[in-house]
Amino acid sequence: MIKRALNVTREADFAAWYQAVITEADMAEESGVRGCMVIRPWGYGIWERIQRLLDDRIKATGHENCYFPLFIPLSYFEKEAEHVDGFAKEMAVVTHHRLIQKDGRLVPDPEAKLEEPLVVRPTSETVIGTAMARWVQSWRDLPVLINQWANVVRWEMRTRMFLRTAEFLWQEGHTAHATVDEAREETMKMLEVYREFAETCLAMPVVAGEKPENERFPGAVATYSIEAMMQDGKALQAGTSHFLGTTFSSAQGIKFQNAEGQQELAQTTSWGVSTRMIGGVIMVHGDDDGLRVPPRIAPWQIVIVPMLRDNDEDAALIDYCKGLQAELAKGSALGEPVRALLDLKAAKAATKRWGWVKKGAPVVIEVGGRDMAGGNVSVIRRDRLYREDGKLDSAVVAKGDFVAGAAGLLEEIQARLHADARARMDANIVRGVDSFDALKAHFEGAGKYPGWVEVQWSKPEGAELDAVVERIKALKLTFRNVPLDATPADGTCVFTGQPAVERILVARAY
Amino acid sequence: MIKRALNVTREADFAAWYQAVITEADMAEESGVRGCMVIRPWGYGIWERIQRLLDDRIKATGHENCYFPLFIPLSYFEKEAEHVDGFAKEMAVVTHHRLIQKDGRLVPDPEAKLEEPLVVRPTSETVIGTAMARWVQSWRDLPVLINQWANVVRWEMRTRMFLRTAEFLWQEGHTAHATVDEAREETMKMLEVYREFAETCLAMPVVAGEKPENERFPGAVATYSIEAMMQDGKALQAGTSHFLGTTFSSAQGIKFQNAEGQQELAQTTSWGVSTRMIGGVIMVHGDDDGLRVPPRIAPWQIVIVPMLRDNDEDAALIDYCKGLQAELAKGSALGEPVRALLDLKAAKAATKRWGWVKKGAPVVIEVGGRDMAGGNVSVIRRDRLYREDGKLDSAVVAKGDFVAGAAGLLEEIQARLHADARARMDANIVRGVDSFDALKAHFEGAGKYPGWVEVQWSKPEGAELDAVVERIKALKLTFRNVPLDATPADGTCVFTGQPAVERILVARAY
Repeated sequence: MIKRALNVTREADFAAWYQAVITEADMAEESGVRGCMVIRPWGYGIWERIQRLLDDRIKATGHENCYFPLFIPLSYFEKEAEHVDGFAKEMAVVTHHRLIQKDGRLVPDPEAKLEEPLVVRPTSETVIGTAMARWVQSWRDLPVLINQWANVVRWEMRTRMFLRTAEFLWQEGHTAHATVDEAREETMKMLEVYREFAETCLAMPVVAGEKPENERFPGAVATYSIEAMMQDGKALQAGTSHFLGTTFSSAQGIKFQNAEGQQELAQTTSWGVSTRMIGGVIMVHGDDDGLRVPPRIAPWQIVIVPMLRDNDEDAALIDYCKGLQAELAKGSALGEPVRALLDLKAAKAATKRWGWVKKGAPVVIEVGGRDMAGGNVSVIRRDRLYREDGKLDSAVVAKGDFVAGAAGLLEEIQARLHADARARMDANIVRGVDSFDALKAHFEGAGKYPGWVEVQWSKPEGAELDAVVERIKALKLTFRNVPLDATPADGTCVFTGQPAVERILVARAY
Repeated sequence: MIKRALNVTREADFAAWYQAVITEADMAEESGVRGCMVIRPWGYGIWERIQRLLDDRIKATGHENCYFPLFIPLSYFEKEAEHVDGFAKEMAVVTHHRLIQKDGRLVPDPEAKLEEPLVVRPTSETVIGTAMARWVQSWRDLPVLINQWANVVRWEMRTRMFLRTAEFLWQEGHTAHATVDEAREETMKMLEVYREFAETCLAMPVVAGEKPENERFPGAVATYSIEAMMQDGKALQAGTSHFLGTTFSSAQGIKFQNAEGQQELAQTTSWGVSTRMIGGVIMVHGDDDGLRVPPRIAPWQIVIVPMLRDNDEDAALIDYCKGLQAELAKGSALGEPVRALLDLKAAKAATKRWGWVKKGAPVVIEVGGRDMAGGNVSVIRRDRLYREDGKLDSAVVAKGDFVAGAAGLLEEIQARLHADARARMDANIVRGVDSFDALKAHFEGAGKYPGWVEVQWSKPEGAELDAVVERIKALKLTFRNVPLDATPADGTCVFTGQPAVERILVARAY
């Protein structure tokens, strides 16, 4: 059996493995501040790549970036009851604006109590809606298409790095439109942007679809999501797009005069993805040697490790590696120069190699004296780390050939990670389960990784839906979404026995 | 007299003019949340350019980006008394983590009071120092070179958009080193990065120098700044770099074993610039027609306005403009493709023209039927808006020539804005004032815009310095910095009459 770089496997303990990947790859760590993590350079570098690639897409679809206040006065929230209900239980509240010394400790100054407490934004519909109400008077002012990259806070009781933290980083798009059709079109357009981004950049296959009523964003008329399958078979909601109708425009007063001179409420949308995506990347692509980062979002795509020996040859070896780095930076992979790092830290080459393996750099190049003498480099691919005999697969390649093929190699790795994840997801979505008992049997019998089940249902609402949700909750299951590309229903609902109207995914979830 | 685009001039009321530029250029607006502004797309677009260009420099000097928590426990602050004194009076304090309904209003839930209140970061030395203490054990772990882009909150009582807001955006670099020399070298290196960035990208001349003791960052051993001269002669501190010695390493416990096996405290630095820089850009480059954005930080460098007439010719005109936009995007200005916008909004061409003038787009291209027929474009340069006769300077240029020269034109505008600002600053730093009476007479007699005065002083400390500060404060003056490139002192101190040891800038300031 091959000894792996991590001391816990996915099979043995998926949750412990997830945490080990994050720690061993130096992605993030506990901060000492309740529920908040420190995102370290490798984790943050992945976020920066995500930001860059997604921001390009958000701008290409006509949106502009803005920045709105971190703090939201309570009165803004009071205007929208359903929204309040959804968030009031987990909001950080600022009540004072000064500290004083008392008995040798710092305490909030009672003299500096705010007249109106401020909430640290959990999401910005209310404060952005208030601004839109100022901006929009006439149909000519519509659509308003904006986005912000920001931190938000939701006071979660049980936190987990990247997946659920009290503070997290995200982008939130907010738009206002003159008509329902336009707003719905925007909602679907951004869902598609997320889907394409997840597949193309994160190499993460997803199912795009509509959330059932019980999973809607507080205040939304309709919520859509992309759902990704983790290697333990659970679902991760990786992005959402909401059609908000007039919920926030009526609460915040976003009104406009239409072309006929009548006052109307604007139709709004919002959509967001967060650092949670990084948790998804870990659980989709990681293996028992650590993380594997898809090349498009890798902070460094190729890491060059010179096998220094503290002798006279070192200087020449470093020069050789610098030349390689420069040639790679000139070339172009996936439309950009290759991001190549020369690792000159004071550590043993083997330590560095395994450090980069655990971090999941797509390609590690080792260069020793023999490589240099032959004009070669030794290439380790993170997506194909071992040979069939279990030994590390390090291929000696002529330097010129490697440089010429580097862009293509990175594309190949990107495609392979995607294809592997796609095959795994496709193999683990079970269809044809046609009764609640069969559904129950599937999840009770399928062992640890039962995947997802797509069932037909009658789309119950209100109390009837609540009852159904209770039944699946007892099995630790959740509704994920109604896939946009699902086959039309043609049977009976596994929950109500009534004629089915659509198919919905049922899964355990993060 | 030329009628200007703004209805207030710099001469008439500089403060009102500043606010008018921001409003008329759609850069930012009041948010309704005390002390916090909404940064609108044009203002945020400038910030994005600043981020991109400065981030490249921060990375090129070996720093990596991270992200640390928004919230800082009070106990972290209590460890460093001087730092606390500097910030305790203006901190937003989170005391509760849930809201409940009471008498129809939302209120913080008394049952959800935090055991230890959390401060919304005013700066992150304490929380980052705590992390560094975990990371650093041996001299091999040093230096630690990190940076974060983040929002911070300082509860300012008197706020002013971009210059002083309760919440603002910034980058904060934090580094730890084994030796004083290395840490001091880092402090000066980043000061130089800021200086070069301000001059090269913002076209904003600055004086780099060391702050006197009374202006040091709370906890710093030495604080350096870049100071820019606004058009009203006041100084704006546009960036700071601090050598922190062992202040924070001793409070937070950043210790390492040196090569000789002994425990030592690390030497740390921090350095930052903020959205305040945008206030500086406005007050350095704006004129009575609004903002003028240096091309390198302009979200759109060239804006194309087709003179549409709601007739059959419009489609051809739009095609002609799209061709121009595509050609510009292919070319390269200042090393990047030209950022060219085709403005197809539903508004009159003249309204658009003046809108872009007020926003300060470096070049506005107007294209009418006659231009198209002749294969031409009409070019308006924002840095040279009027002819000598006071008429708008719109030059008809062959389209091909314009495209070929666009990159050079933008460079020329960048250089011209810089040269103008440099000439103004150089002309308004007065030297040779050799007594306190002369200093007083200069500022009392120089009218509204007295510029800066460089005086010789004996660098008093403690109570003696406090007395001097009181004297200049009475004249509404402040010490800015001791310029790095100042001539050595050769006279007597204008404050104490003792032999002078260096020269220091005195000015009114923002």
